[in-house]
Amino acid sequence: DGAASAGAEKAARCVACHGAEGKSAVPLYPHLAGQNAPYLRHALQAYKNGERNGGQAEVMKAFVAGLSDEDMEDLSAYYAAMKP
Amino acid sequence: DGAASAGAEKAARCVACHGAEGKSAVPLYPHLAGQNAPYLRHALQAYKNGERNGGQAEVMKAFVAGLSDEDMEDLSAYYAAMKP
Repeated sequence: DGAASAGAEKAARCVACHGAEGKSAVPLYPHLAGQNAPYLRHALQAYKNGERNGGQAEVMKAFVAGLSDEDMEDLSAYYAAMKP
Repeated sequence: DGAASAGAEKAARCVACHGAEGKSAVPLYPHLAGQNAPYLRHALQAYKNGERNGGQAEVMKAFVAGLSDEDMEDLSAYYAAMKP
């Protein structure tokens, strides 16, 4: 399992679209606060694997390209722990 | 915009994985309650377009194959209106 505390530091690039508290101000982007960590981990991996394409997926692919497995686990734990 | 009331009827097939109140009991699946409607609409369309692949995406592709634009809008409105 990831460490939410480590995720907090790694989330700096996520904030612009997904909000400082995991609530996206842009309706086309998903809220992340309180989402299931395994799902978030899966989604990040899917972007990294090129299994999600089109539209904003291209933005996500660029962001996740540099993330390690540990980074993705930490970020997932961080957002899952937030109040939805 | 979709009609949440119409979405309620159409969501019968969503419940098994995403929960009767949009809260998934299976951590690999996302909660949908309170998610942004435009994002939900986008995600459904992406599955239908074949832009999401691998893992559980194959399940979603099968479910969305028969959905019309109106169905997807109603379902998105339905889940967005739920308490997260």
